[in-house]
Amino acid sequence: MRAEIIATGSELLSGGVVETNSIFLAEGLLLIGIETAFKTVVGDNERDIEAALRQALQRAEVILITGGIGPTEDDVTRKVLAKVMRRRLVLSEDALSAIKGRLAGREYASANDRQALVPVGSRLLLNPVGTAPGFFLEEAGRFIAVLPGVPQEMEAMFSEGLRPVLADRFGGRLFIRKRVLRTFGMPESAVNEALSAVIKKKRPFIGLAAKETGVDVRIVASEPDPETAEAVIEKTESAIRERLKDAVYGVDGQTMEEIVGVLLKQRRLTIAVAESCTGGLISKRLTDVSGSSGYFMSAAVVYSNRAKVDMLHVPDELLEKHGAVSREVAAAMAQGIRNAAKTDFGISVTGIAGPTGGSAEKPVGLVFMALASSEGVKVEEHRFLGDRGQIRMKASQAALDMVRRHLIK
Amino acid sequence: MRAEIIATGSELLSGGVVETNSIFLAEGLLLIGIETAFKTVVGDNERDIEAALRQALQRAEVILITGGIGPTEDDVTRKVLAKVMRRRLVLSEDALSAIKGRLAGREYASANDRQALVPVGSRLLLNPVGTAPGFFLEEAGRFIAVLPGVPQEMEAMFSEGLRPVLADRFGGRLFIRKRVLRTFGMPESAVNEALSAVIKKKRPFIGLAAKETGVDVRIVASEPDPETAEAVIEKTESAIRERLKDAVYGVDGQTMEEIVGVLLKQRRLTIAVAESCTGGLISKRLTDVSGSSGYFMSAAVVYSNRAKVDMLHVPDELLEKHGAVSREVAAAMAQGIRNAAKTDFGISVTGIAGPTGGSAEKPVGLVFMALASSEGVKVEEHRFLGDRGQIRMKASQAALDMVRRHLIK
Repeated sequence: MRAEIIATGSELLSGGVVETNSIFLAEGLLLIGIETAFKTVVGDNERDIEAALRQALQRAEVILITGGIGPTEDDVTRKVLAKVMRRRLVLSEDALSAIKGRLAGREYASANDRQALVPVGSRLLLNPVGTAPGFFLEEAGRFIAVLPGVPQEMEAMFSEGLRPVLADRFGGRLFIRKRVLRTFGMPESAVNEALSAVIKKKRPFIGLAAKETGVDVRIVASEPDPETAEAVIEKTESAIRERLKDAVYGVDGQTMEEIVGVLLKQRRLTIAVAESCTGGLISKRLTDVSGSSGYFMSAAVVYSNRAKVDMLHVPDELLEKHGAVSREVAAAMAQGIRNAAKTDFGISVTGIAGPTGGSAEKPVGLVFMALASSEGVKVEEHRFLGDRGQIRMKASQAALDMVRRHLIK
Repeated sequence: MRAEIIATGSELLSGGVVETNSIFLAEGLLLIGIETAFKTVVGDNERDIEAALRQALQRAEVILITGGIGPTEDDVTRKVLAKVMRRRLVLSEDALSAIKGRLAGREYASANDRQALVPVGSRLLLNPVGTAPGFFLEEAGRFIAVLPGVPQEMEAMFSEGLRPVLADRFGGRLFIRKRVLRTFGMPESAVNEALSAVIKKKRPFIGLAAKETGVDVRIVASEPDPETAEAVIEKTESAIRERLKDAVYGVDGQTMEEIVGVLLKQRRLTIAVAESCTGGLISKRLTDVSGSSGYFMSAAVVYSNRAKVDMLHVPDELLEKHGAVSREVAAAMAQGIRNAAKTDFGISVTGIAGPTGGSAEKPVGLVFMALASSEGVKVEEHRFLGDRGQIRMKASQAALDMVRRHLIK
């Protein structure tokens, strides 16, 4: 069973807008055993959408079209679909009342009528979060669905309306289960080597992806029934964890900051942060997590030397003797913020994020980080590669990982 | 002149990887007057790449293919291209010596030979940053180029090798110039209304895009010569600026944090930040800019009330009487950080980012921000919509904009 996703919208071609709907849809289709073989992006242009649709009908059984069903003249998807499928457009009373219900008190413009037009014989997909309804139709072994282009509307409509229908029609032949194990602290080549025996088996499929946050290991199992697929995933996850040990920090969409947050919360411990080169990024990441006020108390972003002295009581002599980017200053910053905030942990980062400010002795990418706790202070030295943004991101990840490793040991 | 971009790679279909190469390429093509009409994403599968290429040959004059030219078995692009164009693959001595030069001291595997194979009659595109060379060929009014999938390699090869060739072949018919004016502080509907006369003209094209950072206004001029295109852009920019006044904060890729940085640097002024609900985001954004150590001194992320008192000397009574999310505490935080850091400006943000913590009186999205300067302290109250991440981003943008507006007034 092969699918094609057609994303319509001129802004996706040269408006600098990245097309992400198809990532969500391909993932959703995969989980019910439908493989996406093609994605096509096409502008708001009748002739081009028609060409894309005719092509898709020749090479895919399931065709999902996103975008072009709004109320304006640009929105031509339904018109093209009606033409290609040789069906008249009819005004759906159900769609019309749904749209009117949505708009409620607000002004109803006749342009909204257009959104209630569907090719005859279509089934409606209601829009839980917007006005434009979607729809699907089936003909000659082809399943064609039309969804809105706005990501939140498209996602809600797919999950609540379309996915159950697709699972009912096409599911049950091959069940696909996926899991991502997120690792940090091992280079991709080392992960590859540690997992070579598992990867060689080819079933389930194991894929590696190196990111600024570490190496993600993706397991994809395709089996005739969901229980077997699930069992294969579990068994493979265990095998991988046995080989990678505590380099695995999370699963699927979990982030390092979430994991650190969970560990701190479980143990009722608190943390504060002292940042120089990461400039607030660690604090920002920790507070991205809702509920972080339970364990995250404060941070001092000490860019200037004066701030290091005033806010963290880093001794002037240390700064003079070793420089701001040094093992000694990292340790003093971590202890300084722990003392000031009266938390269980203090973490600190000081380094050279670049592109300027490096020297032969202290090159761009050199970063010291420290973790202060009741057991004393531990310092790490890193040399990160990449541009300013990458170095800052990698440094923040390594600092959070220091906390994680301390908590699980 | 219409182009199609074919991105190959199974990870782009269901690996959760967003395809961004085509954004870069479409933009680059547009600037030499070539419009991208279609984008197709296809897996590492000979039959599917063949189908995509045959289709593209029917509907586009310029075809750019990315990916599938590495050294492994998966990399089948050159093989498919040779088949479809009915040309033999030959080993290019130039390509081979380029690859060997690249690898230099490192081990040369015979698999790398594969990367030196090109369809007979192709012209090589050298790879300034990686091993795999690209190539292009022309036949029957079709221009087909093959580029690597790794973004840095693809970008370098396009800019240094392919773009000049394309400009030479196809440029000079229609010159396209683009400019984006970035605005903050006006909703999309207000921008739309203010610009209605400019938008109605239809030439140049004006597009609006609402983002968390504000509304971007995109101007696209297509004219028979570059000077006219440039003049149209300039004239339209002036007309738009006249209507939107100081809501326009930047141009093209400029960010609010860059603009604020430039203004502070020009005036030799310094800033420090006190953040509660934004949790370090404002500080992180200010320090994303290289050279920010010249004006950004420090930040206090004061999540807990104790930190607000200890680090910023916010009076306990204020917290008790008005709560942490209040006009009064915002003002005290801004003054507190300005005093502590001895900077020209102190900015502060306190609010409820959600999803929890809201009440009828102080709902999620309520954010107070303050700017302390030698002229005293100014406070703003905002109500932002969106999820936690959006509310934090919008709050950081509004706070930076307070600084900008103060500096340009």
